[in-house]
Amino acid sequence: MISAQHCAQLDQQDELAPLRDLFALPAHTIYLDGNSLGAQPKAALEHAQHIITQEWGTDLIQSWNKAGWFHRPLSIGNELAPLIGAEQDEVAVTDSTSVNIFKAVAGALHIQKNQAHTAQRRVIVTERSNFPTDIYILEGIKHFLNDGYELRLVNSPEDLHQAIDQDVAVVLLTHVNYRTGYMLDMDELTAHTQQQGALIIWDLCHSAGAVPVDLNAAQADFAVGCTYKYLNAGPGAPAFIWVPKKHQASFAQPLTGWWAHQSPFEMQPSFAASGDIRGALCGTQPMISLSLVSTGLAAFKQTSMQKIRAKSLALTDLFIALVEQRCADHPLTLETPRDHAIRGSQVSIAHPHGYAIMQALIERGVIGDYREPHIMRFGFTPLYTSFTDVWNAVEILADILDHKKYDVNLEKSAVT
Amino acid sequence: MISAQHCAQLDQQDELAPLRDLFALPAHTIYLDGNSLGAQPKAALEHAQHIITQEWGTDLIQSWNKAGWFHRPLSIGNELAPLIGAEQDEVAVTDSTSVNIFKAVAGALHIQKNQAHTAQRRVIVTERSNFPTDIYILEGIKHFLNDGYELRLVNSPEDLHQAIDQDVAVVLLTHVNYRTGYMLDMDELTAHTQQQGALIIWDLCHSAGAVPVDLNAAQADFAVGCTYKYLNAGPGAPAFIWVPKKHQASFAQPLTGWWAHQSPFEMQPSFAASGDIRGALCGTQPMISLSLVSTGLAAFKQTSMQKIRAKSLALTDLFIALVEQRCADHPLTLETPRDHAIRGSQVSIAHPHGYAIMQALIERGVIGDYREPHIMRFGFTPLYTSFTDVWNAVEILADILDHKKYDVNLEKSAVT
Repeated sequence: MISAQHCAQLDQQDELAPLRDLFALPAHTIYLDGNSLGAQPKAALEHAQHIITQEWGTDLIQSWNKAGWFHRPLSIGNELAPLIGAEQDEVAVTDSTSVNIFKAVAGALHIQKNQAHTAQRRVIVTERSNFPTDIYILEGIKHFLNDGYELRLVNSPEDLHQAIDQDVAVVLLTHVNYRTGYMLDMDELTAHTQQQGALIIWDLCHSAGAVPVDLNAAQADFAVGCTYKYLNAGPGAPAFIWVPKKHQASFAQPLTGWWAHQSPFEMQPSFAASGDIRGALCGTQPMISLSLVSTGLAAFKQTSMQKIRAKSLALTDLFIALVEQRCADHPLTLETPRDHAIRGSQVSIAHPHGYAIMQALIERGVIGDYREPHIMRFGFTPLYTSFTDVWNAVEILADILDHKKYDVNLEKSAVT
Repeated sequence: MISAQHCAQLDQQDELAPLRDLFALPAHTIYLDGNSLGAQPKAALEHAQHIITQEWGTDLIQSWNKAGWFHRPLSIGNELAPLIGAEQDEVAVTDSTSVNIFKAVAGALHIQKNQAHTAQRRVIVTERSNFPTDIYILEGIKHFLNDGYELRLVNSPEDLHQAIDQDVAVVLLTHVNYRTGYMLDMDELTAHTQQQGALIIWDLCHSAGAVPVDLNAAQADFAVGCTYKYLNAGPGAPAFIWVPKKHQASFAQPLTGWWAHQSPFEMQPSFAASGDIRGALCGTQPMISLSLVSTGLAAFKQTSMQKIRAKSLALTDLFIALVEQRCADHPLTLETPRDHAIRGSQVSIAHPHGYAIMQALIERGVIGDYREPHIMRFGFTPLYTSFTDVWNAVEILADILDHKKYDVNLEKSAVT
């Protein structure tokens, strides 16, 4: 039997425990939704004040050069790079994940069309269970190009290998599934995709800052991801796109805004590609939200992704074990793999009344979230989640289940 | 002869003068670059603090509903709508201007392709002197579609009417030229374009908050624009896109991110268009930068675009008159029209040593900017520019010219 004392002991031994103090967590709350919106670093406020009063208010347009605004998507990209196994000048923090997916897919299709042996390929592979925006953007590209493209939606991770064959032009996979927390094998799927002559794009929304990622070791082709989940950059903060050196010279995508031009301030009347990571940029970026990405990344410089991963697995293991210990009598189904090799940093549990139970948890200060159908998601963020948080969350879950305290929520609609 | 006393008198009579106190302008500075980056509203700091500490830090993911994050691109769009003659639920504040140009052009081409009488049209018209990103995005779309599209770059505003003929699918025009301040006739060009069977998109980057705009009165088709210039929303704040009711049901563009879905939280595996203004959205928006658009718009609620326009013309008239009075011996060329009907809210003046002179002005605290070739740009923002500012700016310009105080800057390169 795991005890509260044991959890407290784990906290005492936890090398990452002091990092929690970097975050402004609300009182009386166990926040298990950092996989949706990361908590606020205390430093964010001071950083925003500096940008607003000094860079904007006082220095005004001089900040484009003096404060490095113009280079900030790339300088913050360089700060982010080590977390995903990218080299310097391979990452841009810019636009939304959806827009970056569009750029990466369009850029990958462009490369495939310009190679004789892949020019006729018209299949794009992704998972049916992928986050919807990934699929929607693929549909948008397919309709817009109107050139015979076909989406091959794969039903299960086990079927991916076979679905990626020599008809495939481009594969777009999310490394860690947003709903189940299932983590795909990046190395194997990248190698297999490329053996078939296709290019692979990795969506790292639920990976960056959550699990170790080494894009260059995997020799992947492109990647995109989110900064406002595990990277704690703030609501809707700009996303990132990775274009490795090997593809930068040939990278062409239709969102050719002036920030992608090789000499943007010459104001030339015709586009000329930069041939470097700037090819992934488009227009002017929201400097306040963008700058706070740097604040979010600062916490990661005090530890390593290996230590974060070790604590993440300990937290999710503990949560699974405690739920089994305390809630065995209830119809709960674990949706997240037990196998460490294929688990992200969340635990998803289905229950026929999942939505109502999650509402009851939130009312008691345990903040997770709900995803159709029936899935309660709990995100574990080693920078600020403690083992005692896990204990307390499961105690409250058990109390709600044992006494059907979710009954009052059963009428509420899940879809907002 | 215009005197300093006369300028002081104009300030005393200026109904908008008290609004200057809403802005945190740096000391010892005459800021004439609000057409590049608007000044900081004092309220921005407190607003940002609220978003960071309360909405993000304390309420966390609950803010998506509780604080209205999810609807904020549209609720702020509704705040902006009156300034450009848009109805409610026709404007989204989202993404960058470049990305929004892409959406509007792709959406307009889609409509044209689906009408029998315009399906074969392949010409897109814009001005050669347009802001480069507009042209670059058109080039991006042309290459991406690879369907025979041709850009017709028109050399002069006078040639536009003739260039817009029955071969034209879509026209993309910037209402006020960024370099010269020349303002096109929106009503006439819209009517002519539509008579030719084409659709027209207006870029309002240098119009919104600067000159009265009435998109619905002009019966225009689409519009985009910037919020960080005359609307004072902060560096790189999200841009806007206007999709009028008449086009919302048929509006389809390839950046179909999940925010454009009719039921985003149902997480359906296939895109379904909303058929309303949400069709102009794509992915998650940077909430801190986005929210400050609202702070920028607040100042406009204390006056009207008619009063702003009257003061703008008075300021630019005064600047032109004072430059002619004080700098007549120097080789200055007025690039901005004298005719009020075709002048925006800036004055551009060419000088063979324009770059060096602008550097000298900036060193003396007169902040304008420089655009190739040879053009010094001075933006006039009635919310915070005074008539005495204009007097002082010209005094300093005259001193620099009379005593060649720009000599030291002649070696510097204009392109950064």
